[in-house]
Amino acid sequence: MGRIKTNNNASRKDIILQKAAILFKEKGFKAASMRELAEVVGVEAASLYNHIKSKNELLHEICFSVANKYNEKLEQIESMDASALKKIEELLRFHIISMVQNFDEVFVSDREWKYLTDPYLSNFQTQRRTYRKRFAAIIEDGIKKKEIKKIDATTAVLIMLHAISGIESWHRSKQKISGAELEENMITILVGGLKK
Amino acid sequence: MGRIKTNNNASRKDIILQKAAILFKEKGFKAASMRELAEVVGVEAASLYNHIKSKNELLHEICFSVANKYNEKLEQIESMDASALKKIEELLRFHIISMVQNFDEVFVSDREWKYLTDPYLSNFQTQRRTYRKRFAAIIEDGIKKKEIKKIDATTAVLIMLHAISGIESWHRSKQKISGAELEENMITILVGGLKK
Repeated sequence: MGRIKTNNNASRKDIILQKAAILFKEKGFKAASMRELAEVVGVEAASLYNHIKSKNELLHEICFSVANKYNEKLEQIESMDASALKKIEELLRFHIISMVQNFDEVFVSDREWKYLTDPYLSNFQTQRRTYRKRFAAIIEDGIKKKEIKKIDATTAVLIMLHAISGIESWHRSKQKISGAELEENMITILVGGLKK
Repeated sequence: MGRIKTNNNASRKDIILQKAAILFKEKGFKAASMRELAEVVGVEAASLYNHIKSKNELLHEICFSVANKYNEKLEQIESMDASALKKIEELLRFHIISMVQNFDEVFVSDREWKYLTDPYLSNFQTQRRTYRKRFAAIIEDGIKKKEIKKIDATTAVLIMLHAISGIESWHRSKQKISGAELEENMITILVGGLKK
């Protein structure tokens, strides 16, 4: 027990958030306790409260920081001067890399967001819905431009996002291909499945 | 409260199993109680025990009855005289239709099997692993025969199964395409993604 160890790149609060994401992923948000978090951070529970107000606040910060990254990427991709298929490939690559490299917080924001409390909860739900609609709009644009097969865009988004959340199994598997190979395989299958 | 209502096609035990699958899906196996099950079946809790021994037994029966259906189908498909791609299409259609029409028990066997107790638990895990390997073997066969792109078969299985488990969102969505359209869209994208 002592002071929270930091390096130059991460603030104390960042470290608390990282450890919280791991703990929430492993135990689930509901079951995880602040006492356990203090233990893995290596401080007294009381000193956590110098940096954050509550367990709920940790969940809010994790979910909204992930949402920010995804929203930023989507906005950047929407304004790209590229084919719809290329935009989708870019977005899928971003999702895959996030699930591979940033698994703890992405997993928590994807599975545990239902424990957010209002106003965060409704706000987060709206953002999820909007995100999927904007993703579907890129697919629809590709269908119109005859780059993409005539499919239901909502179903395509559902397939893509669920396939990518399956990277959870990849993390758990013992004999596995590299993250880069996983990315290439997923892109080959998923983008290939859309291409006209 | 009274006797368990049946029709000619379902035994009393079948009805209990159907209601248990709905209850376990909605509340989770752990949180669901036998008292609640008795309530939705419309009998006293005591009379449930004329048909089943325990809550655990209900989970075993649900998981293993789903496993039987999938194993049977896989065996049938493996012995088909058809291309690998056609076999995969058949298997995916079976998965999709099961998720659409038989959602409660498929969902429970897919998510709640971790609450099985041994010897059922280890047995079920082995069956899951074997099933995925046999599915991957069909894909590998298709790669060898140059019907399917050179991809990692394990990753392809992961993508297919997770995409299909995304039908959970389809069930929850308000404005949705029909089950048949969902099936065609998924096949177009997923089989299309494998095809060389």
